Amino acid sequence: MDRRTFVNRISQRVALAGLTLGAVAAPQMAQALDNAPVLRGTGDLGIVIERAVGKVQVVNTSTRTSLATVSGLGDLSHASVVFSRDGRFAYVFGRDGGLSKVDLLTGTLNKRIVQAGNSIGGAISQDGRFVAAQNYQPGGVRIFDAATLEPVATIAASYGTTGQTSKVVGLADAPGVGFVFALFDAGEIWVADLSANPAQPRVTRYANVGKQPYDGLITPDGRYYLAGLFGEDGLAMLDLWQPERGVQKVLAGYGRGEEPLPVFKMPHLRGWAMADGRLYLPAIGRHEVLVVDTRSWQEVARIAVKGQPVFVMARPDGREIWVNFAHPDNSHVQVIDSLSQKVTHTLAPGKVVLHMEFTPRGEAVWISCRDDNKVVVFDTRTHQPLSSLAADAPSGIFFTTRAARIGF
Amino acid sequence: MDRRTFVNRISQRVALAGLTLGAVAAPQMAQALDNAPVLRGTGDLGIVIERAVGKVQVVNTSTRTSLATVSGLGDLSHASVVFSRDGRFAYVFGRDGGLSKVDLLTGTLNKRIVQAGNSIGGAISQDGRFVAAQNYQPGGVRIFDAATLEPVATIAASYGTTGQTSKVVGLADAPGVGFVFALFDAGEIWVADLSANPAQPRVTRYANVGKQPYDGLITPDGRYYLAGLFGEDGLAMLDLWQPERGVQKVLAGYGRGEEPLPVFKMPHLRGWAMADGRLYLPAIGRHEVLVVDTRSWQEVARIAVKGQPVFVMARPDGREIWVNFAHPDNSHVQVIDSLSQKVTHTLAPGKVVLHMEFTPRGEAVWISCRDDNKVVVFDTRTHQPLSSLAADAPSGIFFTTRAARIGF
Repeated sequence: MDRRTFVNRISQRVALAGLTLGAVAAPQMAQALDNAPVLRGTGDLGIVIERAVGKVQVVNTSTRTSLATVSGLGDLSHASVVFSRDGRFAYVFGRDGGLSKVDLLTGTLNKRIVQAGNSIGGAISQDGRFVAAQNYQPGGVRIFDAATLEPVATIAASYGTTGQTSKVVGLADAPGVGFVFALFDAGEIWVADLSANPAQPRVTRYANVGKQPYDGLITPDGRYYLAGLFGEDGLAMLDLWQPERGVQKVLAGYGRGEEPLPVFKMPHLRGWAMADGRLYLPAIGRHEVLVVDTRSWQEVARIAVKGQPVFVMARPDGREIWVNFAHPDNSHVQVIDSLSQKVTHTLAPGKVVLHMEFTPRGEAVWISCRDDNKVVVFDTRTHQPLSSLAADAPSGIFFTTRAARIGF
Repeated sequence: MDRRTFVNRISQRVALAGLTLGAVAAPQMAQALDNAPVLRGTGDLGIVIERAVGKVQVVNTSTRTSLATVSGLGDLSHASVVFSRDGRFAYVFGRDGGLSKVDLLTGTLNKRIVQAGNSIGGAISQDGRFVAAQNYQPGGVRIFDAATLEPVATIAASYGTTGQTSKVVGLADAPGVGFVFALFDAGEIWVADLSANPAQPRVTRYANVGKQPYDGLITPDGRYYLAGLFGEDGLAMLDLWQPERGVQKVLAGYGRGEEPLPVFKMPHLRGWAMADGRLYLPAIGRHEVLVVDTRSWQEVARIAVKGQPVFVMARPDGREIWVNFAHPDNSHVQVIDSLSQKVTHTLAPGKVVLHMEFTPRGEAVWISCRDDNKVVVFDTRTHQPLSSLAADAPSGIFFTTRAARIGF
């Protein structure tokens, strides 16, 4: 029964009872109806962050339209989003430690808590029961009930002998276990197992993984956890299928070595791309995308690109890798063909491209152009723009498809 | 605004206009409300086929409950399901040529057409605009508008010089193109490109691919299309990233050769599993699962299992491969560890296991036990049952997650 049928039926019942909707009530009822949520699937919905104004737009990727704007989300610098298991709710992690639960169907703020002083994103557990936030201030990880946002557990990320607490980065969901994350100050990777008792996670610590892990990712199969290192060359890698092997250093030749360049913007590792058994990742400060074979964990290619890469993202089918850049090349996007390993397209979607998000099966990509106040949608087959949406200084774009994927 | 708030508001407006809901109308209105669809996300919904009675159940994988039963779907032998891009609608392909569009939110049959005399499943295009059905009688492929089920195109699958029409099998969505499928009688693979004009697909034909292709699949990245051959050993493989290379024969040593065994039930190739760069597939008639390296397309292992495998499915993280069997071993399921390549668990979920479906990120698996009239849900970490649902001779189980995945 759709909304219109439902209300018609109510009207009939009221009429049957001998009542008539008056001339005044009818238009009001119609207006209430127009404000009522539409019955719709959530598989083609998403969120666009309007960073400067603390708002998000709820968008539909089938119609390429904006459905609602939700405000009051605080400081959305560097905001990121995960989705509830049913795709109805977005959990928005703000830089100010705010964690906001947005209802995509009603276009309203369902709940908001301030869970830390300074936060840098989060993750949702494999079964959708727990949302975890990683914090800079006071550090550590806090875990919440996804339904209520009530606190479930706090992992302090203490290290050393004087009780310091580390900034936490690279938090990711680990299938069958819980969460895995890196400690920037401590140079450690921790795995928090929630399976026995979510309120008291069993933490396994891997020490001396390298200097200053600054971000991390888990491969799409949930097997390998990688933390990028800022304080030294290389990456720290943990095989979660064989954790007894401990953390290994990979790509020791990668990074800022050689002739370091000024780093205009740190790359985002969550954007690392897997395609055809290879991992594509942004070289810090260098105008290159690195290609790594995930069987040998050896670098197999370096692809020259227009600027310092920020996000390096595989189209869902893996045939193309899309790259955006730091200043002064941040109004361009380049496309790499994963078969030829060559740049095939250089696009200019608009001013200051901050993020990209592919539609569920990748026929289109949404690109936020902050200084043009618009989101541009490109057809990934023709590489031509399809449409654009107005948005107030848009930054991150996140679609509900993430709910069903590991590492998002 | 939720449903209750919405109706309260309408009641207030009616009262403001000087009307009162009478004692008769109020309970009727409450009942109408109870019958009205609940506002919910669709990311955790799915369909269970009740084959014998022509019904489907709408299920929720978060609460592990049945939400509705929808009847009138005709002959659901061998029925399969694809989902609309938004996750709201299930397209159910029946053996009798029926194509039914079920609304998961209202639990109703939205539309039903009989599009052929004998049909064997279908697919939905990457952008969600087109649903395609593959037919045995009269053969060929018919393409429909996903919103209306109005016909868009017919591909007759004619071959030879006398105008015969071939049975079509192994229909799959091909990213950026349209659909790819195999012609059982003709021994051909066809790629139908809908990008220029969906009403007049441009068809590329690959002839002499092998004898009697009986099913097919596309790898999760949409790159490789494989058709299993019944009339000879081996598989026909087309690299859709390099179609100019044509169809190659792979695994020529695989199949019914050696000492053929009686085949109790044909394996389903759509269930072929990719994990860690390897493809796991059922050996026809043999008590083995074959493991193929997708870089070399060479067989790298054979794993002995309890019976003739039917579905060989990777858990979404690829760590485990779950296998069910043909008669007389069809009340067991075995689990293969993809790291050790060994069978680690032999489970007995119930009588006559016909299908399995993993939850979106794989923390659980739903298993249909036809002759026990139940669906059993297993925890994939502990390998213990979590709960079960009553169902009338359940066969296929399909979750909305498929909408966002290539090849489902």
